[in-house]
Amino acid sequence: MNNLVVAQSGGPTAAINATLAGILQGVRTSGRVDKVYGAKNGIDGLIKDNLIDLTDIMQDTLSLDTLTYTPSSALGTCRHKMKDWNTEEETYKRIIATFLKYEIKYFIYIGGNDSMDTVYKLSEYCKLKNHDTIIMGAPKTIDNDLALTDHSPGFGSAAKYIATTIAELERDISAYDVPAVTIVEIMGRNAGWLTAAAALARLNGGAGPDFIYLCEMEFDVDRFIGDVRERLVTKPGLLIAVSEGIKEKDGAYVSDRVSNGAVDNFGHKYIAGAARTLEQLLRTEIGCKVRSIELNLMQRAAAHIASETDITESLLLGQRAFTCAMNGETGRMAAIRRISDAPYRIEFISVPVSEVANHEKTVPLEYITPDGHDVTEELIAYMKPLIQGETNIKFENGLPKQISLY
Amino acid sequence: MNNLVVAQSGGPTAAINATLAGILQGVRTSGRVDKVYGAKNGIDGLIKDNLIDLTDIMQDTLSLDTLTYTPSSALGTCRHKMKDWNTEEETYKRIIATFLKYEIKYFIYIGGNDSMDTVYKLSEYCKLKNHDTIIMGAPKTIDNDLALTDHSPGFGSAAKYIATTIAELERDISAYDVPAVTIVEIMGRNAGWLTAAAALARLNGGAGPDFIYLCEMEFDVDRFIGDVRERLVTKPGLLIAVSEGIKEKDGAYVSDRVSNGAVDNFGHKYIAGAARTLEQLLRTEIGCKVRSIELNLMQRAAAHIASETDITESLLLGQRAFTCAMNGETGRMAAIRRISDAPYRIEFISVPVSEVANHEKTVPLEYITPDGHDVTEELIAYMKPLIQGETNIKFENGLPKQISLY
Repeated sequence: MNNLVVAQSGGPTAAINATLAGILQGVRTSGRVDKVYGAKNGIDGLIKDNLIDLTDIMQDTLSLDTLTYTPSSALGTCRHKMKDWNTEEETYKRIIATFLKYEIKYFIYIGGNDSMDTVYKLSEYCKLKNHDTIIMGAPKTIDNDLALTDHSPGFGSAAKYIATTIAELERDISAYDVPAVTIVEIMGRNAGWLTAAAALARLNGGAGPDFIYLCEMEFDVDRFIGDVRERLVTKPGLLIAVSEGIKEKDGAYVSDRVSNGAVDNFGHKYIAGAARTLEQLLRTEIGCKVRSIELNLMQRAAAHIASETDITESLLLGQRAFTCAMNGETGRMAAIRRISDAPYRIEFISVPVSEVANHEKTVPLEYITPDGHDVTEELIAYMKPLIQGETNIKFENGLPKQISLY
Repeated sequence: MNNLVVAQSGGPTAAINATLAGILQGVRTSGRVDKVYGAKNGIDGLIKDNLIDLTDIMQDTLSLDTLTYTPSSALGTCRHKMKDWNTEEETYKRIIATFLKYEIKYFIYIGGNDSMDTVYKLSEYCKLKNHDTIIMGAPKTIDNDLALTDHSPGFGSAAKYIATTIAELERDISAYDVPAVTIVEIMGRNAGWLTAAAALARLNGGAGPDFIYLCEMEFDVDRFIGDVRERLVTKPGLLIAVSEGIKEKDGAYVSDRVSNGAVDNFGHKYIAGAARTLEQLLRTEIGCKVRSIELNLMQRAAAHIASETDITESLLLGQRAFTCAMNGETGRMAAIRRISDAPYRIEFISVPVSEVANHEKTVPLEYITPDGHDVTEELIAYMKPLIQGETNIKFENGLPKQISLY
């Protein structure tokens, strides 16, 4: 039997199910796979022998279409960081046991940096043990921080949500003529790509954010207060975009002024509100009306305003990952290479996961303006193609149609 | 000269410019008005002689269409509570002076409770002084708390945003298999209509929120903790919707446990986060992972997911207000009377502002389930028609097209 299993991992996005749909389309049209499974909750589904048969959904064209536009990970997700097989071989053995039980020839893992680390370790382990399951990665992350791919699936949709929301908030804020500052906090601990997307709100001539502070740039609290104070003299309503992960000179998160020091499973610091910290700061220092807004989970879940470019590319990346697997590639990730910005042209490639795993592609400092509080035209030109187009999402009873796989 | 001035007041919505567009359509097709002006920042524009000529936009069909789908108050807004003329007649005199200067025969004020209070006072003052300017109100508020109208323009679009977002968040939350609670805070100090709209996420078969707490119902902290603790036994990821204005038995806002006691221009209490207060509470009491989300300004500004029913009705209410003014009605508000839920049928009427001003239509307690943490099917049937249909909003460069009038 030539069976295939697919799994999804890490933070959900509006496009990760499009990649799943692309893989299922590949399976369906290739005729080279006998059975197709989904592992529930990422790699945990393989470890715990928790597989879902995806044959029915694969053969139903309309369901595949609904899946394409359904946000979040339809197979469930996990935050499981695989240890090395020297320290935790039992986990590897259980995964191989699941592969053998279901006669899995191909495993495609859709995820970000940590998932590509799993793809790398697992493919190396299989080689070591002469086990012939092929392990391919398909990229996914709203953070856009994956190396060796021009951009990451999910980023374009999140960027479109952010740009649209910033443009709408700008309309709201500019309706008042009293001095007020609105601080919008955008996801990104170490990579500020999503925060930079706030600048796209200017594409149709709007002013966009007054200031944009990315987490790549050292955040100077005094200069920030000075920036705001100076701008308020000429403009009543200010709009400011900040990365959740902005840090001060000593490397401490701005949000640490109020956070509790908790850490997640990966040892990442728990971050409790850069915007809220700055809100309190401005209220104390300047005394004006201040509001903070967190775009929170909406920025990764808002499939209703997904980018058609992103959804289509995510689907094609799923197909590409499948094709690579069929060609016998293992330990690699499907990726995007950009040929040109305008006209926007890309090609699909594959890259070795060893060079993707555990790297973070942050925003190069030359994309930040010299004053430190905005992004350059070059960065806007890079992002602009990624938010183009509106999806063909269907509505029922006034709400976007969604599908649930379990 | 038969000139008309229009103004917008209170919190912006995704539909208030549709009402403005409806008025301009009325002016354009009636041939009974010589010049049309917009007062900038609500009644303040009349007091300060700050008027914008709207002739050009009125005559440009495509601009009127863009205006219809642009969120927030295109003429600017204010939070000006008019005092009685016995204590502050100077303000009234200045408004009348503006009316005389621009030969204003008709004034239409689009707004909520406080704006209808202005319409009432001003129309009474004009009668008293034998000044013949006609003063009409057009309703607007996402809160849906206006008396004498079946529902308020702006509510349907906010409700559609909320239902869509809750459905998307549900997908996101259900992807994880670890116990976690997500608390979503929705606007509404005294009226819980918008919070109730979270239940509409169930229309396509989804589970929707596990619990919905409206501000009309006394909030019992101990019972809340008990509800959550019990449900977590059978379900890992809980989704809870709460009104920003939930209050404890003694009438104190739940958010008062952390707020600072500041008040706004109207003497309304400043509210700093019911959801965040409950987040902290659950973390301490239950110890599970908790996240709070505020839908913040997005729920009133998200024109990209506006309800076509709401936008069309808002436009027609503007036309109706104009027609009433032409018919010599003064001190009245255009309103909606519902004929039936299914099929959904309404008619446009006008009502005396004296009975609208300073009233708040809250959610009747019989619309809340006996357990106090959900809403009834009857309430869902009332709200369902209001979120139907997607608008014909145009996109440019991947973003919704908007118009700016100043």
